Amino acid sequence: MDWKHSISSAAARIEGHAQITPVMTTATLWERPVELKLEQLQHTGSFKARGAFNTLLSEPVPEAGVVAASGGNHGAAVAYAATRLGHKAQIYVPEMAGPAKIALIERTGAALTVVPGEYANALEAARAYEAETGAMQVHAYDALGTVAGQGTLMREWEEQGLQADTVLIAVGGGGLIAGSLAWLQGARKVVAVEPETSCALHAGLAAGAPVDVQVSGVAANALGARRVGSICHELAQAHLGASVLVPDDAITEAQTALWQSHRLLVEPAGATALAALRSGAYVPEPGERVAVLVCGGNIAPDPLG
Amino acid sequence: MDWKHSISSAAARIEGHAQITPVMTTATLWERPVELKLEQLQHTGSFKARGAFNTLLSEPVPEAGVVAASGGNHGAAVAYAATRLGHKAQIYVPEMAGPAKIALIERTGAALTVVPGEYANALEAARAYEAETGAMQVHAYDALGTVAGQGTLMREWEEQGLQADTVLIAVGGGGLIAGSLAWLQGARKVVAVEPETSCALHAGLAAGAPVDVQVSGVAANALGARRVGSICHELAQAHLGASVLVPDDAITEAQTALWQSHRLLVEPAGATALAALRSGAYVPEPGERVAVLVCGGNIAPDPLG
Repeated sequence: MDWKHSISSAAARIEGHAQITPVMTTATLWERPVELKLEQLQHTGSFKARGAFNTLLSEPVPEAGVVAASGGNHGAAVAYAATRLGHKAQIYVPEMAGPAKIALIERTGAALTVVPGEYANALEAARAYEAETGAMQVHAYDALGTVAGQGTLMREWEEQGLQADTVLIAVGGGGLIAGSLAWLQGARKVVAVEPETSCALHAGLAAGAPVDVQVSGVAANALGARRVGSICHELAQAHLGASVLVPDDAITEAQTALWQSHRLLVEPAGATALAALRSGAYVPEPGERVAVLVCGGNIAPDPLG
Repeated sequence: MDWKHSISSAAARIEGHAQITPVMTTATLWERPVELKLEQLQHTGSFKARGAFNTLLSEPVPEAGVVAASGGNHGAAVAYAATRLGHKAQIYVPEMAGPAKIALIERTGAALTVVPGEYANALEAARAYEAETGAMQVHAYDALGTVAGQGTLMREWEEQGLQADTVLIAVGGGGLIAGSLAWLQGARKVVAVEPETSCALHAGLAAGAPVDVQVSGVAANALGARRVGSICHELAQAHLGASVLVPDDAITEAQTALWQSHRLLVEPAGATALAALRSGAYVPEPGERVAVLVCGGNIAPDPLG
């Protein structure tokens, strides 16, 4: 797999569709300067738009369009990318997704059906729609097109002058960190940060293969994958620098710090990587330059909702 | 007055103290791409930290430290700059400032006294403290050091590759736009944007000299200067490209758009410049490249407060 080529191709494909997100260096969030990439400014508030655009621009999309079952960042990104590219999009949202995420998906113009009950019910409805209409599903994290799309973020960051020796990245299903590992190929140290209560990658690495985990906690609605993707698992075995866990209160503390220091309002998942640094879950060596990826801003309740 | 020199000196002075704030180009906030500078990510949530640091680093600060009467962005910036530089800071806050701004000032570590009643009562207390202790006051907008400090923003933006022919800037007392006009010296068109209900610069330009105005509306707590600064008035007479007004509902609409499109949560003043573009209060020529300065993020109520 020539990841460098796949990711560069993805970058060319999504140019003008995905937002180039800004970077900054802050001296107030940790004891030494930290580089940040503000990926929560991406369309629909998370990096997921990169993988969605790459997938929909890589393959022929059937006339029936795209379908997804999701009440989260992936669903919003698929809805946005599909509608911007002129495709039909049907999103099945579990009612537990809540009004903020439902409004986010509604604003894309996608057809949205709120399904009573849990995620499994929404997934069932999406599969029935797929079978009936021939609409296409986009995998949230464990597909080559998705991972290559998310990999464009690290490529973009390096083009923007990333200096760090070490980059901290929050992990759910592993699409974002997989893309980063695939692009970097060991050129910088990558630290995976997961909530203690939602750590599919950590558990999979300990077991030697992806395994099911229980998920809960403040960041679970974005990072709460039950099982890490196999693409991520393989790339992590080859290239990951460290895998650390943070408690929920460290995530909330980092979220508050981003808002108070820099008026960056992010969801808990978006503050999880920073939490590892502030809480000491990851302790850099003296002189080790660190960067933190801020990945999602879809906070609930919506402060302007 | 050699403004280019003053502003470059200010930039050297505040380097490492003020935050270098990121820029981005968005294609989703208007019909054509717009460059943004995200100055609400500055320390204490507004550009005011630039002028405060420049002033406190330009002159000897008495042992009694610094005093200000303000429940707003200027007070927070003075409190922050003074405490970071190791000076005493005493801020008198009118109780009408509200808990979000009071908490922002408290977090700087400055001594804070909440004064019952209105701004005038806080100012009276500050003047008594100044007379008694010899503490220094920093003017919010109509002083050379303040204007030169705010001017570092436009200098920084040009260093970051600003392309625009025209830059839209919100105006209250006029310190920020004065610094921008002083730096640019006519090299780009500058458009002043004020709320219809709080337009001291517009009124002053019409009258030929600064005049008192009534102030009200959603952005009044940041833009509600009763009279524009004389430095601003003079620079505007020489170099301003246009002066436009926007209604409150256009400001609120732009504030919502910044949040929904890019997860940028700003106060009404921070969205006022964008409102001119989205509402049509300012209509660029075909081919005219535009930039919008996002200048403040201290929203109330505090979403994490």
